[in-house]
Amino acid sequence: MDKDRIWTAGLLIIGDEILSGRTQDRNIAQIAVWLNLQGIRLAEVRIVADDMARIGAAVNALRAQNDYLFTTGGIGPTHDDITVDAVAAALGLPVVVHPRARAALEAYYEGRGGMTEARLRMARVPEGADLIENAMSGAPGIRVGNIFILAGVPHIASLMLEALSGTLEGGRPLLSRTLGCWVAESEVADILSATERAHDACQIGSYPFFREGKVGANFVVRSADAAALESCVADLMHRLETDGRAVADGGI
Amino acid sequence: MDKDRIWTAGLLIIGDEILSGRTQDRNIAQIAVWLNLQGIRLAEVRIVADDMARIGAAVNALRAQNDYLFTTGGIGPTHDDITVDAVAAALGLPVVVHPRARAALEAYYEGRGGMTEARLRMARVPEGADLIENAMSGAPGIRVGNIFILAGVPHIASLMLEALSGTLEGGRPLLSRTLGCWVAESEVADILSATERAHDACQIGSYPFFREGKVGANFVVRSADAAALESCVADLMHRLETDGRAVADGGI
Repeated sequence: MDKDRIWTAGLLIIGDEILSGRTQDRNIAQIAVWLNLQGIRLAEVRIVADDMARIGAAVNALRAQNDYLFTTGGIGPTHDDITVDAVAAALGLPVVVHPRARAALEAYYEGRGGMTEARLRMARVPEGADLIENAMSGAPGIRVGNIFILAGVPHIASLMLEALSGTLEGGRPLLSRTLGCWVAESEVADILSATERAHDACQIGSYPFFREGKVGANFVVRSADAAALESCVADLMHRLETDGRAVADGGI
Repeated sequence: MDKDRIWTAGLLIIGDEILSGRTQDRNIAQIAVWLNLQGIRLAEVRIVADDMARIGAAVNALRAQNDYLFTTGGIGPTHDDITVDAVAAALGLPVVVHPRARAALEAYYEGRGGMTEARLRMARVPEGADLIENAMSGAPGIRVGNIFILAGVPHIASLMLEALSGTLEGGRPLLSRTLGCWVAESEVADILSATERAHDACQIGSYPFFREGKVGANFVVRSADAAALESCVADLMHRLETDGRAVADGGI
């Protein structure tokens, strides 16, 4: 196996509530950070409505382009929870009740009113799928092939990620270091691009801000190679200081 | 013109910093809410890296499927700001310096170190484009055809939206009303789906939460038709109350 292979994931957020602006998404950032710890890069995110055809099109596009696909949202007990059906349809698989999911839900709802048809919906999976446990609720996440179907509620999604930690093959995590200057990024644009050109294995991102009445910018150097990263950071710091800039190691 | 026509927009977020999890996106929600006020529905969001080919593919897919396309990010002065080039390439247009953008930048940087090659990058537009003013910085947003290129910094994007308010043709805004119950959504799933089936012009979304040690859910009814919305909300409230649930009008 190529040690430099880059593993990627797509993320599909399913939910009218995000597209309406009613709910601020909190899954993208937490999944991105978690993926990087697994040595997997988040390559693309799509957000679509609770609609079979739109979910299916996005599932098939993102799973074809990436090693892994994660979805969040739409796996509850109500009529607008159609993720399992849409993923199964996209894969050409029937939907079946998973016996272990059913047992987990029956145990969870014992003394909470018992099993109902609506609750049984949460035991439905594409045929051949495995479950992703979570300690918080009876409703599991679902793994089918390279697709991971997670809850939309951020703290439940987070528990499902925890259950998956260390189980997915990945490559080297992308490392990053940040330098900050109280400077308009346009004043050091030439330094940034020259430094990036001189360090093939690194990318430099420039993130301007306006704070305490002053403009500044953070420069984030990223690389999968620790030595290359350090060398690029040292070079960038040297070039900025030579240009008369005070550099904050770690960013501002 | 069909008064029931639904106008849609796609949104493309350009930025490695969102995909790495370093930055929490704050543009999706503000653009979604603003679009709805214009009578335009946000139909899909994609987030891609600072990469010409990926930006181009997303631009062409989203502009073909929607009446409007908005992009955020990648319009600053540094080497990683490639949105203008990527959009122009996707449209098959050359990139030119816009005289009024150049003049605005020259005025802005007068006394701030003057014009530089890096700063002049922010005056570059796809040929034939118009500018979207913003009061905060010298760098304008760009309109080219049905594509609106906005800044990534949320408060500057917000000023650009303000400049566009009331200028885009749209339809009737999607209206919404929320009812809340301290109930597990699985207990009322049948009521929700039966109510939605009885009201063609409305959708009902169910959003569960766990708060103060108890489970609850908000039910958001959406419609472009005010009378249909009121009738569906009244029906849902009646059905929930008949089932013995205490309903909070406005949500919990």
